[in-house]
Amino acid sequence: MARTAYVNGRYVGIKEPAVRIEDRGYQFADGVYEVIKVVGGELRDLDRHMARLERSLGELRIEPPVSRRALGAVIRETLRRNGLKNAIVYVQVSRGTAPRNHLFPRAPRANLVVTVRRAPFPSAAELQDGCAVITVADQRWGRCDIKSISLLANVLAKQQAAEAGCREAWQIDEKGMVREGSASNAWIVDMQGRLITHPLGPEILGGITRARVIEMAKEEGVEVIERPFTLDEALEAREAFLTSTSSLVMPVVEIDGRSVANGKPGSVTMALQNRYRAAQGMIAKSAVT
Amino acid sequence: MARTAYVNGRYVGIKEPAVRIEDRGYQFADGVYEVIKVVGGELRDLDRHMARLERSLGELRIEPPVSRRALGAVIRETLRRNGLKNAIVYVQVSRGTAPRNHLFPRAPRANLVVTVRRAPFPSAAELQDGCAVITVADQRWGRCDIKSISLLANVLAKQQAAEAGCREAWQIDEKGMVREGSASNAWIVDMQGRLITHPLGPEILGGITRARVIEMAKEEGVEVIERPFTLDEALEAREAFLTSTSSLVMPVVEIDGRSVANGKPGSVTMALQNRYRAAQGMIAKSAVT
Repeated sequence: MARTAYVNGRYVGIKEPAVRIEDRGYQFADGVYEVIKVVGGELRDLDRHMARLERSLGELRIEPPVSRRALGAVIRETLRRNGLKNAIVYVQVSRGTAPRNHLFPRAPRANLVVTVRRAPFPSAAELQDGCAVITVADQRWGRCDIKSISLLANVLAKQQAAEAGCREAWQIDEKGMVREGSASNAWIVDMQGRLITHPLGPEILGGITRARVIEMAKEEGVEVIERPFTLDEALEAREAFLTSTSSLVMPVVEIDGRSVANGKPGSVTMALQNRYRAAQGMIAKSAVT
Repeated sequence: MARTAYVNGRYVGIKEPAVRIEDRGYQFADGVYEVIKVVGGELRDLDRHMARLERSLGELRIEPPVSRRALGAVIRETLRRNGLKNAIVYVQVSRGTAPRNHLFPRAPRANLVVTVRRAPFPSAAELQDGCAVITVADQRWGRCDIKSISLLANVLAKQQAAEAGCREAWQIDEKGMVREGSASNAWIVDMQGRLITHPLGPEILGGITRARVIEMAKEEGVEVIERPFTLDEALEAREAFLTSTSSLVMPVVEIDGRSVANGKPGSVTMALQNRYRAAQGMIAKSAVT
């Protein structure tokens, strides 16, 4: 079935040419986006995604093209037209359309695009078995806290991971610290059972799932330490995992070809995964103990 | 007059929606570009721009959408349809169109866009008086040698410069070295009359005008040293300038509000500017001595 997308007030077939050449999103990567999970027809963490979108726009001084309420309505209508109950909503806002010039145009009208696609969530087996990651030197720009479409470095890293048979590429800074993946946050569980993940700042994206995991851990009385960790720490950790809206809570069992602990998903990770999936309505709440 | 653009085999009005939403150039900044000068109807340094485009594509493993010869024909036809003799040609190639996923699509067909616009070359007064620049911490990604459309950091830097009343933002690395501008290369002339500019590498774009200036200097017996220089060196230099296809050879007379030398364009810079403009057919060769 041809998918339907929303572009600046119109619903169009996704293959229809609907974007202008001089959209600054196309020529300058001058835009931001969000990816929102839909489970059983329900948008998950919508308010948080909206708040993050508004923050990204604010950092770039892009005027929101529509109100939060109107954007919600557009998202729901796009979902309805695509008839999907388990899906990923993609929202992109770019600064506007203007003759090519690095400088902000004088009175730009931001462009809004919303698309929906079938949910690419990991299979039960993937969630059970975990995944392998590689590490790469972080080549991304200096404002990874802004969820911008300036994603070429992320694309190259993720492609490199896939060609090594891995799910993700953990970005290592110049001090040897793990920042995050190319499209997910990175975590370890230390020998004391504490969660460790990179603190918020310009080096990483403030993941919505990251925030959810911190909240769940605290509710469970599990300590969370937000500090950078090294690759060696990860290899010597009791557990490792990654989080994102699409990958959920995914165990990491191998880094650069070396096993994390015994090479099996750990119990803290699996408990968080279950709890997260239950909270997001992906499994029955009764499945979590 | 509505401008005409070329998009994947069709000539369209530039305001016509002609790009697909899932063009990877729009969602991932997964593409590259060139800006080519046209003077008196003649394309300048076309072979060099073509070679650099092919290099950028090669680094990203994007298959060129058409041959070099065919691209030349498209550029000429786009120019002809726009009836411009002094212009800037913009060529963009993105990896292709595919459902959103960081990973390279399996058999992508690259998208090619060519636009033309009236030349925004500096005025005679601007070339004579020079310009001011600010310095900013380099926030760009790690592969500035690839002329990619992942330009958000460049946009923000250039905007910051404009708001400070300056033409450019010189990108400073973590060691305090000047790399280049947001859309131009950076140069100084030291007290011995030698040209100094950052060496080629992942930190800077290998500018076509940069290469031309090196060649001209060598022909004139002026020594060129390709090494990073500091902001202090620039402030204490005899002259400073920047180069790009559109800005030509532009004197820099002020950096972060402080004068370079006596705050006037220097003689080495002006000689190079004249020589470059003459070589590019922008002034009569007889104007250069």
